[in-house]
Amino acid sequence: MSRTLTRTPAADRFWMPAEFEPHAGCWLLWPERPDNWRDGALPAQRALTKVATAIARFEPVTVGASASHFQFARRQLPAAIRVVEMSHDDCWMRDVGPTFVVNAGGERRGVDWIFNAWGGLNGGLYFPWAADDAVAQKVLEIEADARYRAPLVNEGGAVHVDGQGTALVTEQCLLNPNRNPNMSRAAIETALEHYLGVSRVIWLGAGVFNDETDGHIDELACFVAPGVVALTWCDNRRDPQYAISRDAEVRLRDARDARGRTLAIIKLPQPGPLYSTAAEARGVLASEYAQPRPARTRLAGSYVNFYIANGGIVMPLLDPRTDRIAANHLKRAFPGRKVVGVPTREILLGGGNIHCITQQVPATGGKREQPKK
Amino acid sequence: MSRTLTRTPAADRFWMPAEFEPHAGCWLLWPERPDNWRDGALPAQRALTKVATAIARFEPVTVGASASHFQFARRQLPAAIRVVEMSHDDCWMRDVGPTFVVNAGGERRGVDWIFNAWGGLNGGLYFPWAADDAVAQKVLEIEADARYRAPLVNEGGAVHVDGQGTALVTEQCLLNPNRNPNMSRAAIETALEHYLGVSRVIWLGAGVFNDETDGHIDELACFVAPGVVALTWCDNRRDPQYAISRDAEVRLRDARDARGRTLAIIKLPQPGPLYSTAAEARGVLASEYAQPRPARTRLAGSYVNFYIANGGIVMPLLDPRTDRIAANHLKRAFPGRKVVGVPTREILLGGGNIHCITQQVPATGGKREQPKK
Repeated sequence: MSRTLTRTPAADRFWMPAEFEPHAGCWLLWPERPDNWRDGALPAQRALTKVATAIARFEPVTVGASASHFQFARRQLPAAIRVVEMSHDDCWMRDVGPTFVVNAGGERRGVDWIFNAWGGLNGGLYFPWAADDAVAQKVLEIEADARYRAPLVNEGGAVHVDGQGTALVTEQCLLNPNRNPNMSRAAIETALEHYLGVSRVIWLGAGVFNDETDGHIDELACFVAPGVVALTWCDNRRDPQYAISRDAEVRLRDARDARGRTLAIIKLPQPGPLYSTAAEARGVLASEYAQPRPARTRLAGSYVNFYIANGGIVMPLLDPRTDRIAANHLKRAFPGRKVVGVPTREILLGGGNIHCITQQVPATGGKREQPKK
Repeated sequence: MSRTLTRTPAADRFWMPAEFEPHAGCWLLWPERPDNWRDGALPAQRALTKVATAIARFEPVTVGASASHFQFARRQLPAAIRVVEMSHDDCWMRDVGPTFVVNAGGERRGVDWIFNAWGGLNGGLYFPWAADDAVAQKVLEIEADARYRAPLVNEGGAVHVDGQGTALVTEQCLLNPNRNPNMSRAAIETALEHYLGVSRVIWLGAGVFNDETDGHIDELACFVAPGVVALTWCDNRRDPQYAISRDAEVRLRDARDARGRTLAIIKLPQPGPLYSTAAEARGVLASEYAQPRPARTRLAGSYVNFYIANGGIVMPLLDPRTDRIAANHLKRAFPGRKVVGVPTREILLGGGNIHCITQQVPATGGKREQPKK
């Protein structure tokens, strides 16, 4: 049931809906590798279980686990969560899963980007990544959705959309020579238009400081509604995040979305700054095949890295000094949804957060309005 | 979504519907092991692809393939067939998959028997079998059906039902000391009543001659309708199958089903007798972990080993001298269905046939009539 289609979503009048539109469910992957997750990945598995359980309050959740971890994942996760066997190289479903697209008739398909572990042999984070690259197709098989294989190295966490024709990306990631070195900015914009069904790409500059994905947008900024963007913010001029957030703010103020609107900005305070501890670093078993995780590394913690579920927001709890401020911003930004916080430092230690480990599956069946060009 | 339930299907008013009742779809597994399938399993893969394609004319088909074979299976199978990653030790979905049960409200659950590769270390066919034993649970996860873990070594091919309270089994298999040595015939009958929701077990004696499963019923006899049984038949007194079929006939004539009916018998001629050739045997790479496949082995070919799909019968073509006779019997037995023949000698060489490699998923949603006790 996974036909691989040869045209593009835009040519077929499909587009990526916003995360705040209705979902059929959510996919995650089980963290397993001991060279990225401390203590045999058990603390990360517990944190991911809490995230998955929180999301399952709002919508159906499926977790993919490798054959060797299947039984353990099944036992640790609540019965209401579906567990399926799925090989992977790590658990970043946002980046290795499909980016779903829909059409006006309520049909759903998936875009399967080429995945190279955030930079391949030129700054990528582990080797090999062949199992990861097959995840999107395997998800689409189980969902029985047709597949577009996009001729572009990209990750789901590198793009956000408003569902009305606008994409939000960073230059640091999308223009990085370790992704698509032979494509110009214009060529990449065209590819995004074809595969996300957007007509306007808003370019921010750098991503969150020390974000090892080369600056994914989903750490820095996201749409909370059409015309409204949440942005990681920092008021300390001596912090390297300060200039990054200021630059993003200027670009957002100057931008117009696909419908010509200006953008309102919600500033979410940066937690910390947060650093890995010696105790945390000791639990990671270094290997030749993954980057090291030394102590005292600045962690790219960000409250922007939350998940929007049906009727809920599942957000990371990272720092008691800022958690409540961020939660209150999100409550105001999403008045119809219940904001649930989950402690996710263990996920952050591995290089990401709640948005990075999730991938929403848009609902099918209802009519949708196609974005105008 | 795979709750493991602690009661039994019968206690919850669930029962196994007959194969000729409506299906939601069909599952198969991809043949891979070179110590059971000749020529790297490619001929078996081609035969299974033909079987899956034939079934897909009638109902949705899913094929499970190991991680290392996923891409090859995906490329060989038609796009309309869903392929999912699923570890297994061989491809006998009938025996390792769940036995589905339904209730009067149209709900569906699955029975996950203990699997020991048809006899464990006492006559079983390969070692290990841990991946096989996990298949039923993995199918139930993807189908999002609740699971009963039956405390009984059993295989789906060892039981047939009429969906109206009657089970059909063989003593050779169900009473074999390599399955449940500490259970009496009465205890096994009780277990079948609890897990299949039947009230009458009809015992035949031996299975088809040289059937390596220890005489599965699905090689010897099956219900084609309530009160009607198809039986493998042999008219040659010097053939070891002769006495087996005669004994089965006598037992079937004496039997009454759960509703007190006598049984009509449709005799399907035995093909051949068929033997493996030297060329076929040469292609199998012997290993310590699977039984050998020598040349000149009598093959347990049987036309009873067909699959009933929605509106169709997919039957094995095994011998040009008998194929048409068997097909005509099946056309008369299933007047509303299209009979499709598929050449499956390559499946037979590995130890089974179309029924052995398939597992139907009953349809949900409609009301069903619970068998009376």
